[in-house]
This record gives sequence, structure tokens and C-alpha cells, in this order.
Amino acid sequence: MKNFMNPKSVVLIGVTHKHGPGSYNNLETMLKYGYKGKIFLVHPQVDSIMGHNAYDSVEKIPETPDLAVISVGRDNVLPVFKACVEKNIKRVIIISQGFKDADEKGARLQDEMVAIAKKNCVRIIGPNTLGVLNPFSGFSTSFVDLKRDSNPYPLGVILQSGIFIASIDAFTKELGKALDIGNASDVDFVDGLEYFENDPETKIIFIHMEGVRNGKQFFKVASRVAQKKPIIILKTGRSQAGAQAALSHTGSIAGEDAVFDAAMKKAGLIRVKNMIELRAVCNALLHCPPMRGPRLGLITISGACGIMTADACEDFGLELASFPEDLLSQFEQPSIKWFKLHHPIDIWPVGIVSGNVLEMYARIATALLKTDHLDALLIIFPAFDSSLHTEMDAALLIDKIIDQNPNQIPITFWIYGQGGKAKIQELSKIDGVAVFERIDEAVMGLAGSWRYVKYQKQIE
Amino acid sequence: MKNFMNPKSVVLIGVTHKHGPGSYNNLETMLKYGYKGKIFLVHPQVDSIMGHNAYDSVEKIPETPDLAVISVGRDNVLPVFKACVEKNIKRVIIISQGFKDADEKGARLQDEMVAIAKKNCVRIIGPNTLGVLNPFSGFSTSFVDLKRDSNPYPLGVILQSGIFIASIDAFTKELGKALDIGNASDVDFVDGLEYFENDPETKIIFIHMEGVRNGKQFFKVASRVAQKKPIIILKTGRSQAGAQAALSHTGSIAGEDAVFDAAMKKAGLIRVKNMIELRAVCNALLHCPPMRGPRLGLITISGACGIMTADACEDFGLELASFPEDLLSQFEQPSIKWFKLHHPIDIWPVGIVSGNVLEMYARIATALLKTDHLDALLIIFPAFDSSLHTEMDAALLIDKIIDQNPNQIPITFWIYGQGGKAKIQELSKIDGVAVFERIDEAVMGLAGSWRYVKYQKQIE
Repeated sequence: MKNFMNPKSVVLIGVTHKHGPGSYNNLETMLKYGYKGKIFLVHPQVDSIMGHNAYDSVEKIPETPDLAVISVGRDNVLPVFKACVEKNIKRVIIISQGFKDADEKGARLQDEMVAIAKKNCVRIIGPNTLGVLNPFSGFSTSFVDLKRDSNPYPLGVILQSGIFIASIDAFTKELGKALDIGNASDVDFVDGLEYFENDPETKIIFIHMEGVRNGKQFFKVASRVAQKKPIIILKTGRSQAGAQAALSHTGSIAGEDAVFDAAMKKAGLIRVKNMIELRAVCNALLHCPPMRGPRLGLITISGACGIMTADACEDFGLELASFPEDLLSQFEQPSIKWFKLHHPIDIWPVGIVSGNVLEMYARIATALLKTDHLDALLIIFPAFDSSLHTEMDAALLIDKIIDQNPNQIPITFWIYGQGGKAKIQELSKIDGVAVFERIDEAVMGLAGSWRYVKYQKQIE
Repeated sequence: MKNFMNPKSVVLIGVTHKHGPGSYNNLETMLKYGYKGKIFLVHPQVDSIMGHNAYDSVEKIPETPDLAVISVGRDNVLPVFKACVEKNIKRVIIISQGFKDADEKGARLQDEMVAIAKKNCVRIIGPNTLGVLNPFSGFSTSFVDLKRDSNPYPLGVILQSGIFIASIDAFTKELGKALDIGNASDVDFVDGLEYFENDPETKIIFIHMEGVRNGKQFFKVASRVAQKKPIIILKTGRSQAGAQAALSHTGSIAGEDAVFDAAMKKAGLIRVKNMIELRAVCNALLHCPPMRGPRLGLITISGACGIMTADACEDFGLELASFPEDLLSQFEQPSIKWFKLHHPIDIWPVGIVSGNVLEMYARIATALLKTDHLDALLIIFPAFDSSLHTEMDAALLIDKIIDQNPNQIPITFWIYGQGGKAKIQELSKIDGVAVFERIDEAVMGLAGSWRYVKYQKQIE
């Protein structure tokens, strides 16, 4: 996989001679993304593209590059692929569509290429792929222009669609290395998993799966890898209509969903249902250790949110922690005898009477974190976009509690209010704290991390 | 309700003499929000607050204001309330906590005030409330400083928590008039519904309910109002732990959820499960007419998203529309004979071969909108944050199709990509198009609008 993810030299075959807006020029996007290795071009008509020489055939390239990227029309792919094999190129990404995703002829062409590849020890990614993305080294085969993250996350992803690469934000918030296996004619989930298993730049793995050819082998490898690194999986085509659509997208057989579901659990994979849950679970695991049990502790200044959180716990498989009475009662205020602290802990009255709401948050959070009565803490905290409320700054609260967490319990926040979006952005890269945009996402995310631990315990 | 929502004069009782950061001064926030009416203050110790005279008792106010806002400590509320009644003030908002939400004494105090109110034709909002918010006229009783929306949405909300007022964005994206009934000792859901029923500034109603005292009357009125205006309801305390928490938040009895659920359906209310779905349904109904059937049409350049949308349809109660073969085949391109257009419609190959992807979106969308084969259209469209992809601008596409919608079918977008957030913000106020941050939210939102129509049809 190294020559896919980090090639020293690459030949691009099928790059358009146009560049600039609307041309989806692979050379242009590769250069913009920061690739520093050697680039060769093959083009039958033009001599150069964007100042790079173009050869009129693969055999004329003066050396054997580590990787070929093919994006010619479907009917020209096979001869070009054969030329790459002749040239002794061992890694080929086929971006072109029109194979098992299309018709019988496409399926035959795909099978023929795979047979040639196997015979010659060549590996293929695709066809029907955006290829690979490596923000660590600055290599991308995407024909969409993507901004490179200067500080990428240790989230390795294996996909059957470039949409995840083109729209990181909507799905996973952050991304590390990505591998779009497309039709998965050769390189597939197992190859991806085995690569990420030992990749030091990857700590969490996400799989987007439309279907898998060799399920038995996949689950064997996945269950081994999951013992080392959490694997989140979005298996689409759950519905009948979705399964039908999968067939014409990547030629995948979605299979019986209930069977897959049971196998995923058994292998210790964290299945997510949709992109909302995917994003939530990635966020939890990227910023916090996983929950070691199902008990959630909650501190809020809104009673209504306590109730919503309790509902969400039931929906997504967590439970509200139980606290001994004196743990909370020590924070009750003599001037409001009528007010008792319960769990979910609504601190508004005691906070406001104490004269320092933020300090009350910190004191109660710190007291909870010292106990073994909870497996995660959710703090509901405002971010009002107003000079009248600057003292209510979640960053200050995080400073006060982040080092007061002897049991390394996951600490999560839901930040709300007119200044919420900006504050969430500001806090999103703090390690040890996961910040969410909705209560339900916080609970979904934590619940996913608990499922991981629970399944691993069953396996051991 | 007019004197609650739009009083010409108001007396504030219990405002702190401090102002500025951290003081939660009701006078300061009311002035900042833009209230232009007369304000009287009552304070036992100081003569003026922020340049406004303060009287040392209610009886000394030189006239009878339309509204009193009480935020003194719990044990002082009853005498102050009595003084307001003596003064012939007919509308009172009690912000203070510590009544049915607290202990038996609080419950007795609350009951006593309600009895006095009934005898004297006085109406109470609260206790335990943030009061009212009227962005149209610029009136707010919130002690949190809120930015006033210069172009408020016709979404009237009735709440049992100020959290919705303080964090509009997280729950409903946009807000119109809001009424936090808190413990709902007197003014309750029925009063709110009857006010919004005939309020020309309100077209959609949202209810956040922890419990309801007189369910029979509520459902009778709600089912009448729902025939005129869609009512979205978030009934919390669905779970056992949530129901327990509701008791100590607003003293509400959450009740048997299944019973409520059936009654809501029968009354034609759109129930949402959590804030994710709430936001989605509000977004759909604020920007589009409701779906008149369950059939969703989908245009995408990502096959993977087609599958995810199909799954989401099954999850949330929609179905993929069926199109006659020739409706789509007319857009197939002779140069890629192997490519057939199916539904979900992945237009990438035909778009790229045609040389103008955006124009292909527009042509297919326009063709679909002219038929009666679908009840809503979802367009999945990128927003890449790059000068290389400026031609892929959803705003241009909307311009091309918005007037080509003879059947007034709801048109929705999922915008993805590194420029997605900014583009969604840009498009969020366009009428006739609802733009979502996730596929599942688009489907949830549309499905909510279809439930509304479906339930209304059953009622008729």
C-alpha cells in the first residue's frame, strides 16, 4: 500500500489538457494538494499540460513510476492498463467508471484486468474511484480540488465512494488517510484494514461499505484489527431500495442486512446507521478514550436538556449514572433550601446564588470525575454571543477540569447559544474533550464508543 | 396574550442593581433587545438602576402597567404578586423558580397565586420561565442577552424551557414569537395555541412539552389549530429516566408515552423525537410547502449518497419515486452508451460528458418537476471551497429551477463539501428551497411535512 499512499513517482494517464475552473484536471489538483514527487503524463494529442511534458504512450516514459493513475474513457482503459503492466508498473488506480458498476461488458473488462493484474503481481485500486488521499504527506489523486489539513487526524478511512473524500466535514468532521476502493475489483477492505492495522498515523478506522465480496475473510481480519484500533462501519443499502441502488453504484451485493449486522457485532465493529451517527462516533473517539461502561453523568443549567439527555440515553443505549446523595448535596446552597440537586444535575439555581455559575460547574464536574460512579461526563454549557456573558466561557471551564480527571473518563460538551457555532469550532481541536452540536449527537457518539468496549469485552 | 407579547408598559420587580457582564440584569437585556415601551422598576434598596428610577414598592408606581415581570427570590414572590394584583396589573410573568418544580411549599405557593389570579381576572406566565420573546416588535423578558433577528420567521413557539429561546439555532434554526410557559400554572399550551391560531405573524407552531395538565382540552384545541397551521411537537420525558427528570424540572407528569403518541397522531400533530428532527422539520416547513405524498425524487452526483438517501427514506417514512423509463433515458449521452440513468439519479457521468454538470442538474430537475411522479425533490450538490470549482454553484442552479415548479413541489438541497457550511448559510433564507446539512435531516424534514398532510387527510 505504501506505493499507493506515498508514491515517489506517478504517471497520470487521461488528464485533460484543459485546466482551471471546471476542468477537473487531476494534475492540477494533485499539485495544489502538495505532491512533491515526480509526475509523468501520458496524452495522445498534446505535448505538455500545465508546463509538464506529456508522452504519447506509457512505454515512452523514461522510467517506471511507482504508481499509474488512469482516467481515460471506459473503452480505452484495458489497453492503457496493459501498457502499464508491460512497463512493469505495479500499482494502478483506475478512476474511470463503466465497469461492474455499469453493464456486462464493463464487468468482463474489469474481470480481465484483474486476471492480468494477478498474473503480474500488479495491484489495482478501483475502477470507479477517486483514489487515495494522504494529508500527512500531501498526496491526493482526487480530481476535485481539496484543501489539505495541516494537522490531520489519525482517522484512516476505507470507502466505496469519493463523496467522503470530497465532503469530509459532513461525514466525519476530520479525516486522515483515505482509500476509495470504488468497485473493489482487487484492493479491498481487507487490504485497507491490514494497511491501517500497522500504520502509526492511524488510530481509528472508518469503513464505508456498500457490499463485500469475501465476507468471511473480511470479518476475520476486521475482528483482529478491531482489537487494536476501533473500527467504525457505515454499511449502506440497509433498505431494499438502497440495496438495489448499490448494485448500480459499485456493482455491490448489499446482502441480507440482519446477517451483516450480527457479524459486525461479533467482530467488534461499531456500526453506525447514517452520517449523523458516523460524525458523532468519530468525534467521540477522536477526542476521548472510549467509555468503559454505559453510565453517563450530566451537568446542565437547563432542566429541559436533562430530560432530553435522559431520553437520548434510552434511544442510543446509555443510562444516567446514579450518584450517592451526599455527592450532590454538598453543593446545595443554604439560601435556597427548597432546591435539591438531582441527576441530571441542573446547577442553575445553586450556580446563580453562589455568584459564579462557571465555578459551580467546575466544582461539581471535578467532584464527579474523582468518583467511580460514571463512565462519561456530558456538560451542557452556553456560548452566548454577547459582551454581557463573556464570563460563561467553556474554554475557561475546560482549563479548570481537564487535569482533574484521574480515571480518564471521557469529557464531552454540548455547547449551545447564539455564539455556539464559533465556540464549537474554537474547541474542536482540544484533546481530551469532545464538543458536539446537538445533545443527541453527544449521546450517540459516546454510545458508539461504549459499544466498542462492550463488544471487545465479549470477544476476549 | 397581546399584553404579554406586546405590552405598552412593563414593571420589572427583582432586577439586580448590578449591570454589565455576569449580572443577568433583565432591564439591561430588555433594553438591548429593543423594547421601546415604558419601563418601571421596583427595588427596595436602590433609587435607580441604569438611569431608570426605581420605586420601593409596586403601589408607588404612578400608573398601572400592562405587564409585571417578577424575578425576586421564591419566598418574596407571593407578597409581590399580591401587590401587583392590588395595583390592578392584569398580566404577570413570574421568572422565579422554586414552586411546583421544587417542593410542597412551592406547590402550595403556586396554587395560592393561581387562585388569586383566577379571582381577579389576572393571567400568569410561569413561574420558572424566561417569559416571552417577540422579535417582530422587539420585546424580550429574557435575562440572557439575545440578538434580535431583523427578519424573524413565522414560527411561533410554546415552551416549557428557556433553553429554546437562549439557543434558537440548535433547535429550530429560526424563531418567531416565543412563549415559555415554565411550570404552566395558568397560561398553558391551550392559551398559546389560541393566540398563535389567529396571529398573522405565525404560520407554523412548535410546542416543547414536558407534560400537560388538561390533555383532553389540549388535544381538542390542538387538532382544531393544526387544521390551519402545522404544529410540530417535541414531547420529552419519553424514557423512564426522562419522565422522572421532568417532575423536578417543571413539576410535569410526563404520562404514558404511547397514549400521548396516539393522541398526537389523532390530533394531526407532527411529533419529533429530538432536536435533530425538530430542526429538520422546522427547516422543511419554513421554506417549502408540505409534501403531498411520500414519493421523493433524488438527483445526485454521488451514487453512494443515492443509497444513503434510499436507506433514510425507509428509516423516516418516505419512498423513492418511480419514474417511467423515458423520463430519464432522454438525458443519457450517446458517447457513454454503457451508462443508464436510474433512480436515485446519479448524473455524474452524463454531466461530465455533456461538459456542463450544473446544466444537466437543471435540465433533469426541471423535467422531473413538470411531472406528477414525485412529491418532493432532493438535490445533492457540492460546494467546493476552491477557485477551480466556482461553476458548481448551487445558487445558480436554484435560479434556473425555482420558477420551473408548476406543481409547487418542495425542493430541498443537501450541500456538501469544504465550502458547504458557508453556502448553506448563504442559501438558508431563500424562500421555496430548504437547504440541509445532512441527507438524513433532509429526509426527516420532508417526512415530517408529509406526516402533517397525511394526518390531516385522515382527519377530514
